[in-house]
Amino acid sequence: MAVDAHSRPAGETEELLYDPDVPTPTHGERARTLVDALATGTLCTIAKDPAGFPYGSFVTFAMDGPSPIFFISSLAEHTKNLRLDGRASLLVAEGGDADPLANGRVTLLGPCHELEPGEAREAAKEAYLAAHPNASYYIDYADFGFWKLDVEAVRYIGGYGRMSWVGLEDWRESSPDPVAGFARGVIDHMNEDHADALALYCRVFSRATDTKAATMTGVDRYGFEMSAETARGPRPIRLAFPSPIASSEEARRAMVELLQRARAAGEGA
Amino acid sequence: MAVDAHSRPAGETEELLYDPDVPTPTHGERARTLVDALATGTLCTIAKDPAGFPYGSFVTFAMDGPSPIFFISSLAEHTKNLRLDGRASLLVAEGGDADPLANGRVTLLGPCHELEPGEAREAAKEAYLAAHPNASYYIDYADFGFWKLDVEAVRYIGGYGRMSWVGLEDWRESSPDPVAGFARGVIDHMNEDHADALALYCRVFSRATDTKAATMTGVDRYGFEMSAETARGPRPIRLAFPSPIASSEEARRAMVELLQRARAAGEGA
Repeated sequence: MAVDAHSRPAGETEELLYDPDVPTPTHGERARTLVDALATGTLCTIAKDPAGFPYGSFVTFAMDGPSPIFFISSLAEHTKNLRLDGRASLLVAEGGDADPLANGRVTLLGPCHELEPGEAREAAKEAYLAAHPNASYYIDYADFGFWKLDVEAVRYIGGYGRMSWVGLEDWRESSPDPVAGFARGVIDHMNEDHADALALYCRVFSRATDTKAATMTGVDRYGFEMSAETARGPRPIRLAFPSPIASSEEARRAMVELLQRARAAGEGA
Repeated sequence: MAVDAHSRPAGETEELLYDPDVPTPTHGERARTLVDALATGTLCTIAKDPAGFPYGSFVTFAMDGPSPIFFISSLAEHTKNLRLDGRASLLVAEGGDADPLANGRVTLLGPCHELEPGEAREAAKEAYLAAHPNASYYIDYADFGFWKLDVEAVRYIGGYGRMSWVGLEDWRESSPDPVAGFARGVIDHMNEDHADALALYCRVFSRATDTKAATMTGVDRYGFEMSAETARGPRPIRLAFPSPIASSEEARRAMVELLQRARAAGEGA
């Protein structure tokens, strides 16, 4: 989890107001979650012409476990390139933030090869059609084939200052965050209906003991992040759930348990 | 403007109901328009590690005439790659359509080099800051530099069946479509307030003489496209403006002139 340091003017470093060892998703988990949520990206191949240039093309993809699957036509430039040189990468980038460089992105690098008829091809086809049901219209075109990228290196950039080359074991053994699909709902619900609880969590479980109000900004299987309004301005706070969660019902129970603990331990006692 | 033909079952070919020689943007003009409207893409470089693999990374860019400009940190992987091997490409892809493969995209390939202090660097900086005003916060970081990609090959894909390698002269001498910025407004206005005129254009100026209704689907400097409801179903119609337009006022005048001609020539006479 190396953080690159830009050559910027020296300034004060903000003191962290929460436990730096709070359980946090690994970069492998973050990367798997990001890639799993998306279905289009840029395939990079080595061009046949102009020879040797890296060639970026828009592709749809699906994940078969840790490996991206492409369903591409032999008439397309990227397929012609791959037939001559299988070296490839796939860039998958989040959209959404007004500042594009604050969004997350992942580059998966490795050799890409066409799948021959057989079990692996059937698994790839199933994964691809689950992600792209419209492809059933041309799934039997003779010029189309399934290709798989065997990931050998993973670059993760989570936004400013959060980036690393992800360990291959971390990539292969991580699973996408089960919370990703309903995180937005949890965040909205907590901010709309339980803002008092969020501020109490900050006062009791972090060193932002003067928090007047707090807004939830993120949630994952291991915990959640808030922006706490303190006397010295807004400060980030991350807290862990009592144990990892996998459903919105588990999220609700974890929040209630934290509230009971906060009341028992802190101001409410 | 070669059209690749997929190996699909033979079917009927629809007869074109409008003049096939109607003035239409070149692929160079379409590509320049697409790239000009966007500010982020994928930079493809040759990786230092794993050596020789094509590496895709998310970048912001600006156009300095026909050349993309990047403002990138020497700490970033793509910059390290470019210092060892300047061969690069930039993929720029439209979003928006529900079917991602129906969207347009452009790949610009060529050598990429860092701009030394001087006139070219000042022009690049000005173009970049105009497109990315927030970059002014880190414009003076010592590790950042301006890089320019000298375009030597251009691949354009406008969606299904509309693709080509664009001639370099077409790329360099084309200008972005001046209509792109207000096309949406023209389309909405015509469909909401002048649907009768659209249907009349189709009946008088095309061979869709039984058009009951028509919807405008696109507009550019040279003309506009409609979907005509005919007895045999919806059919595409493209018509030219009397002369190329560059403003919404010119669009309005061209539509009025066409209406007068249609009334004089056709049913309204």
